[in-house]
Amino acid sequence: MKWKRSERLVDMTRHLLENPHELIPLTFFSERFKAAKSSISEDLSIVKETFEEKGAGRLVTVSGAAGGVKFIPKTEEADVREVMALLRDKLGHSDRLLPGGYLFMTDLLGNPRIMDRVGKVFASAFAEKDIDVIMTVATKGIPIAHAIARHLNVPVVVVRRDSKVTEGSTVSINYVSGSTKRIQTMVLSKRSMKSGQKVLITDDFMKAGGTMVGMKNLLEEFGCELAGIAVLVEADHPEEVLVENYLSLIKLHAVNEKKQTVQLEEGNYFSEGGK
Amino acid sequence: MKWKRSERLVDMTRHLLENPHELIPLTFFSERFKAAKSSISEDLSIVKETFEEKGAGRLVTVSGAAGGVKFIPKTEEADVREVMALLRDKLGHSDRLLPGGYLFMTDLLGNPRIMDRVGKVFASAFAEKDIDVIMTVATKGIPIAHAIARHLNVPVVVVRRDSKVTEGSTVSINYVSGSTKRIQTMVLSKRSMKSGQKVLITDDFMKAGGTMVGMKNLLEEFGCELAGIAVLVEADHPEEVLVENYLSLIKLHAVNEKKQTVQLEEGNYFSEGGK
Repeated sequence: MKWKRSERLVDMTRHLLENPHELIPLTFFSERFKAAKSSISEDLSIVKETFEEKGAGRLVTVSGAAGGVKFIPKTEEADVREVMALLRDKLGHSDRLLPGGYLFMTDLLGNPRIMDRVGKVFASAFAEKDIDVIMTVATKGIPIAHAIARHLNVPVVVVRRDSKVTEGSTVSINYVSGSTKRIQTMVLSKRSMKSGQKVLITDDFMKAGGTMVGMKNLLEEFGCELAGIAVLVEADHPEEVLVENYLSLIKLHAVNEKKQTVQLEEGNYFSEGGK
Repeated sequence: MKWKRSERLVDMTRHLLENPHELIPLTFFSERFKAAKSSISEDLSIVKETFEEKGAGRLVTVSGAAGGVKFIPKTEEADVREVMALLRDKLGHSDRLLPGGYLFMTDLLGNPRIMDRVGKVFASAFAEKDIDVIMTVATKGIPIAHAIARHLNVPVVVVRRDSKVTEGSTVSINYVSGSTKRIQTMVLSKRSMKSGQKVLITDDFMKAGGTMVGMKNLLEEFGCELAGIAVLVEADHPEEVLVENYLSLIKLHAVNEKKQTVQLEEGNYFSEGGK
């Protein structure tokens, strides 16, 4: 069957969107569509222009024998601001306030559409960093980690508080929690990472950053390199945060439990160079 | 700016893929593309045909004033078999065998591409069931739950073993674990679900089904209705499984710890009417 250009464009768009950060040889498309490479190149330039104009991301062409095309998801600044505004709006209601100055965020973390947008925002910021693995800690960081991972096409590893038989042999470390100063344990399956890999750490919430330091120590045990930190919400903290160079989307500022008010600001995403 | 048909097709495909199970009015597209509804209808029929021919899913048109178009992701039988074969291949290696007859699956659950395919397979099976919520238990079911949820456009709720301050007030139940016969606890945030919602339960692994029974009891506490059960891997079990009408992709059969062999079969996905 011979494909029309219009059909090729629809199927090509789908294939690229479903396979971000993957180099697809032109021969893949020319065989799939039974079309000449010159036609495929023309199709790709239409997809490229449309993606770039509408803020879906970039299409990068790699020439040569091992060449092909790669889709890099990108969220434009205006869309990042829209995601931030959406989160501030959703999180700003006083009925989210929990004892101890915590915020109820479970519903947002369970919303696949919002997580997908958050994931794409962070994946944009780390698109050029050659991330190999996304690391998070159970339980609430997992949806964010998977959302970023899907847009970067890399695996997720989940650090646990306790060792389970289903993890096989594990590496465990002790660390001091940032806010409560208690000694805690982190466990990660030995098979999770290989020495030399570049790791992006993510979590839903950061106060003093103790959990982040724990994960950083753990990845050092594996001989891995910290490539970045992505946090959905950071809380205002009287002392200095224990980690540097993190990106956040929202900053939780001035929680008043008595008056039941929450004040939220934009996180440091733009000031720290996310884009 | 006036859009060409080719550009409209690329952008429309992206918009539909990113918003499954959502009714999009034709006016949305005609305003976005500054094009007549008749042109939009022609575009949509090209997208529809291409999606249906290449197994991406269905485009359903709803006519009338509140009408529009809806993308329903569907995995064709051949693609489901391919996903099953991939899982069997990956899970069949003897180095996955853990003490107690468990299988190491953490790497598969951390692979966003595989999770996406698994999610779409289950979302296809439950596409017509009007699912409101996907429920799973921490930790390993979360990636599967989110993958299904994204394709069905519904939220995920995560049952925990322990109560945490960040969950707000919770409902908790006790249940008997199917394999070990021990009493265990399950906790779910009160704000997670509303009475009358239809719930799809999912998990990565099922032996006797005790955890599933626990989740079923929990959703009954909320006045919700069980709409289905989706399991990645079910293990052969000497006694009858405690739940009915579940779908599985893989069946773990005959684990021999001494000889270090694993035998895997297709799950009941097709025999139980998944498609």
